[in-house]
Formats: sequence, C-alpha cells, structure tokens
Amino acid sequence: MTDTTTDTAATTAPEQGAGEGHEAAEILDAARALVDPELCAAVESLPAAVRKVARYHLGWEHADGTPATGNGGKAIRPALVLAAVRALGGEPKTAVRAAAAVELTHNFTLLHDDVMDRDTTRRHRPTAWAVFGDAAAILTGDAMQALAQRMLADDLHPGAMEAAARLALCVEELCEGQFMDCSLESRAPDQVTLDECLAMAEAKTGALLGCACAIGAVYAGAGREAADALDGFGRQAGLAFQLIDDVIGIWGDPGHTGKPAGADLTARKKSLPVVAALASDTPAAAELAELYGGPPGEGDPARTASAVERAGGRDWAQGHAADRMSGALGQLAKAVPDPEAAGGLLAIAEFVTRRRH
Amino acid sequence: MTDTTTDTAATTAPEQGAGEGHEAAEILDAARALVDPELCAAVESLPAAVRKVARYHLGWEHADGTPATGNGGKAIRPALVLAAVRALGGEPKTAVRAAAAVELTHNFTLLHDDVMDRDTTRRHRPTAWAVFGDAAAILTGDAMQALAQRMLADDLHPGAMEAAARLALCVEELCEGQFMDCSLESRAPDQVTLDECLAMAEAKTGALLGCACAIGAVYAGAGREAADALDGFGRQAGLAFQLIDDVIGIWGDPGHTGKPAGADLTARKKSLPVVAALASDTPAAAELAELYGGPPGEGDPARTASAVERAGGRDWAQGHAADRMSGALGQLAKAVPDPEAAGGLLAIAEFVTRRRH
Repeated sequence: MTDTTTDTAATTAPEQGAGEGHEAAEILDAARALVDPELCAAVESLPAAVRKVARYHLGWEHADGTPATGNGGKAIRPALVLAAVRALGGEPKTAVRAAAAVELTHNFTLLHDDVMDRDTTRRHRPTAWAVFGDAAAILTGDAMQALAQRMLADDLHPGAMEAAARLALCVEELCEGQFMDCSLESRAPDQVTLDECLAMAEAKTGALLGCACAIGAVYAGAGREAADALDGFGRQAGLAFQLIDDVIGIWGDPGHTGKPAGADLTARKKSLPVVAALASDTPAAAELAELYGGPPGEGDPARTASAVERAGGRDWAQGHAADRMSGALGQLAKAVPDPEAAGGLLAIAEFVTRRRH
Repeated sequence: MTDTTTDTAATTAPEQGAGEGHEAAEILDAARALVDPELCAAVESLPAAVRKVARYHLGWEHADGTPATGNGGKAIRPALVLAAVRALGGEPKTAVRAAAAVELTHNFTLLHDDVMDRDTTRRHRPTAWAVFGDAAAILTGDAMQALAQRMLADDLHPGAMEAAARLALCVEELCEGQFMDCSLESRAPDQVTLDECLAMAEAKTGALLGCACAIGAVYAGAGREAADALDGFGRQAGLAFQLIDDVIGIWGDPGHTGKPAGADLTARKKSLPVVAALASDTPAAAELAELYGGPPGEGDPARTASAVERAGGRDWAQGHAADRMSGALGQLAKAVPDPEAAGGLLAIAEFVTRRRH
C-alpha cells in the first residue's frame, strides 16, 4: 500500500537548519500545545473499552494502560486548521475544537488502514490491531469518527456545521482513496495507470490536508471561494508531499526513513515514481516491468531503483511535485493575497515537503 | 455473538392478525416509502467504489451491479424517528432526512459487525465482506457513517445539530456494545455476568432504537426532557426485543427464524436466557454449564434447551422482557401523555417485540 503516514515523514525529518523549518517546528509545537488538551478531554468522554484503545493508538498509554510519553505524530492537520484561521484574520483559539476533530478523524483512518493493510508498526510501536485485535481497532476507529463529528455538532461556533459537512465529505473521499489503493495493489503493475495513482494519492493524502485548511477558513468566517481555494492549497501540497515521500521511499537514507533501503521496491509497492517509470516506454521501463514481475522480497533493490531512475521516474516525481507545489501556492495566493498572512500555512507546507533525500 | 438483527426479526415475523400488527406494518411501509428516496439520493452522492458496496448491502443491487428488488430490512429505526415526530406534534416530513441518516448509521454498524463476527449471511444474502472483501466492507461502513453525519450537517432544520450530536454519541455506545460483545464471547460462560450481558444488549440494541426516538423528539421541537424520555422508551423496548429474540433463538420455530433449531445453543452463544440460567444456582444450571463446556457444534440442543428452561432462563427472559416493556411504556407516557398521539410509537414497539415463539 502507498504509505501516507505524514506523521512518519515529519517525525523522521532531519533537523531544519533554515529559518522556515524552525518556524514550522514552532508552529507545529504551538498547535500541539493548544490542541492536545482538547483532544485529551474529548477522548476521555469515550466509553471505557474504546477509550483504552484510542489512548494507546494516540501514544498516550502503553498496552497495559500505564502512561506513555507519547509520539502521537506531528499534528500537521490541526496546525493547518489553526494556521488557516490566522491567515484569514480569524482567532485560532476559536477553532481548537475543530482542529482536534480533524486530528481525531486522521487517526481514525490510520487505525482502519492499519487493519486493512496488515501493517504491524505505526510510529515505532505495534499497531492497535496487532495489540488488541481487529475488532477493537475497527470499533475504536468507528467511535473516533463519531467523536470527531460530535465535537463539531456540540460546537456553538457559527462555522461548525459547515465544517462538519466538509469533514464528513472528506472522510467519504478518504475511504474511496483507500479503496482505490487496495484495488490498485491487487492488480498487475501494467494494469495500473499513472492517472489512477495520482487520483488515489489525492483522495488518500491530499483530501484531508485540504479539508483541514478549508475548515480553518470556515472558522475564520471566510466565504466558500476562499475555503475552496485553501482546500486546493492543502490538497496540492499534500500530493507534492506524497510524491516526495515516494521518492524518499526509494532513494532516501534508511537512517532517516527508518525503513531498510529499497523496502518499498522489494515489496513491489506501486509508488508514483515506479508507475511513472513503467509508463515511460523506455528500455529501462521494460527492465523494471520484468523486475517488478518477480516475487516480492526477491531481487536487487539497487538495480530496481536504478531502472526507475533511468526510466525517468525520479525526475518525473520531483518535477511533478514542484508543479503541484506551484499549484498549491497559486491557490494560497488566491485565498490569502497578503504573503505575510500566508506565512504560517506556507511554512507548514514547506516543512512537510522539504525532506532530505 | 448476540444477534441484533431487528431486521431479520421483522422480516421473519408471522402475518399479524391483530389490528396493531397490521397498523405497525402500515406504519413501517409508509416510513419506508418516505425514507427510501432520500436514502437512495444520499447513497448516490457517495464516491463510486463505496457506493457500489453500499447499494449491494442495502439490497438494491446484486454483486454484479444489476438491480435487485431489495430486502433492505423493515425500516424500524426510521419509522421510530417519524412516529416520534408525529407523537410530539411535529411534521414527520421535516425529519425524513434525519430518519434516513439513522437508517444509514444502522447499516454502517451491520456492515462492520458482519466483518468482526465473520457472519456470512445477512438478510438471506452473502454479507458484503464475503462478496467484496474485508477492506471494502470496512471502508463502505466508514463512508456510510460519514454520509449519515453529512446529511445532518447539511440539514437546515433547527434540530439537526442536536440530532447529529445524539447520533454520534449513540455510535460511540454502539461501538462499546459490540466491543463488550466480542469480549464476552471470548470468555468462559462462568466468567460472564448477567449484568454485563444486559449492559451489552442495551448498548448494542437499545441505544440506536432510543436514539431514533429521541431524534424524532428533537425534530418535533420537544425539549431535552421529552427527548430523553423517548430515548428511554426506545432503549427499554429494544432490550425487551432482544430478550424475546434470544428466547426465539432457542425455542422458536425454525420455519420462522430461518435458523436450524437450537443453532444458538450449539454455537454456545451467551444469550440472555442462557446466562440467566447459568447464574441460577440450580441443578439444571450445573448441567447446562457442563453442556456449554463441550465443544461448539456438538451435543443435543434439545437437552440444552431443556436445561436452560429448567434453570429458569426462559421464564426469567420473558418476565424481564415484560418488565422492560413496562418501563418503556412509562417513559412513553412521560413524553407523550396522550395515548392516541403515542399510538404509532406503541404499535412499532409492540410489533418488534410481539413475535411467535
């Protein structure tokens, strides 16, 4: 399955030397500090059995219920909500509950994706289903989705209902994206088109980043046009992130990615650079098709990576990521013409897409 | 697992000779006629892949996408929403969307329960996971929960947000109920208390019936007290239904239940009459404990049924169902003092609890 763990990306990002990376880290920390108490109080209101699994998944507890000093991910989505509110002249504090609801929604999808993908590790710990079983993980995800919607339904802010509708519509898109992902993974590499993979990545990764920004716009009292433009910003930046994440999955430093070199290739993952390379109609594409036809776990990943690169997969991914980032900036400028006001959103977007590779 | 398929119950209910049964059937048919177009339009708005699975699960399509003349269940929950609106002097038509959202929510939980329980048949057809796979069923359930919430978030009725909050809170309870059910099933029969089983049944079966009634009250513009009383009415009636369903699961006519005689007993299901019998401290309880200690699928179900009956399980269940129904009627009278206005709600409650056994 295509890896969409923005959290992992952020967690394993190297120290940012430049000012913007530093600014982004501060923005993310500030968002986490604002949102965590709200998130914690919300989870506390869940019934006991699902609450325990939720607290484990969020990194707050060990499996035995003792407190853990959590690594619950980098809070990119809540930070986007709050940064979007600020960018449009609103008061971020009014949107803390909405930001927490977005983070809960993200985590509900992670819980369910891990069950479907049979992933056993998330944020350096065993996944919830691996510890508590499939039913516990499915039910806790279901309850977390409901809790996220309840937080918005109970929110008296005038934007809460529109935010709830946007979040629900986004979940439908996320489900479709994961559905497409499962379907693409079960097909032969030559039965998968690049357009399908891009649509899947946009639904699976772009949609919630876009929705987070749009919800911030709604909470700032912005009109539909600005909210839709910010949705486009987050969506395009999310796709840029996914492209770069896929590049790192092939050519990244295992010391930073936390995965063995070439793991995505030996798993025969249909990542975007690979699918672009296969579609390139080059001799290297034919070589790659043959390598990908071999049984997963076998073959030389360095040779496979070389074939992807010679078939143009790496260049295509980096170029396409740049195009998407440029599209994202266009949408951002449309919603927030003042570059200074847009700074926070921009810093987060650059943070998630600017990783060492 | 404890069977909570109210739909099956209603579907397999015998022809109702009495006036009330006839009235209830008319109420259910009228609710179905009002709600189905709204439900259909909502499902039409889902993305393509999850929409296909949703249409299959709802009985509108065969697995190959050709139209089916559906058996989507008896629409008991939407009928309760509309009957509650009418009972409190509101206009049922204003709550059609909310009623459809409740039905979608019910169906999302069925999709997920079937995955967890590994049930292969639902409403006389293969379950969605058995046809499309686990991931498809999980994702379609997730998308249906989101859709239900989106319908309420998009609803301009002044009660929509409170309804959304009540529905979300109810889903959290349903998840906890299913979680408890899975946990009880994995324990030895003597490690399960009657109170735990009753709490589980209330969460799993009573909560959504109660929530449906409460949402109707909210859409009628009733205050919190009336809504809570109607929640209590649906909840208690739901538990009465579950008790009677369990009795039928043991002593019912296989021609009506659609299951082989004693199937629940040979599967070692910890249904309420069995757990009550085991807790009875009688010689028959000891005999039953020994029979239930044997491997599932073996033993004489008639002898097991006799032990449950001799240990008082059948009498207890019928008595307790009558108590719960009496409690339900008390709540109903509190919310709707005029017996004529309460007639529709009463007819539905009696319909679901009055089955041949």
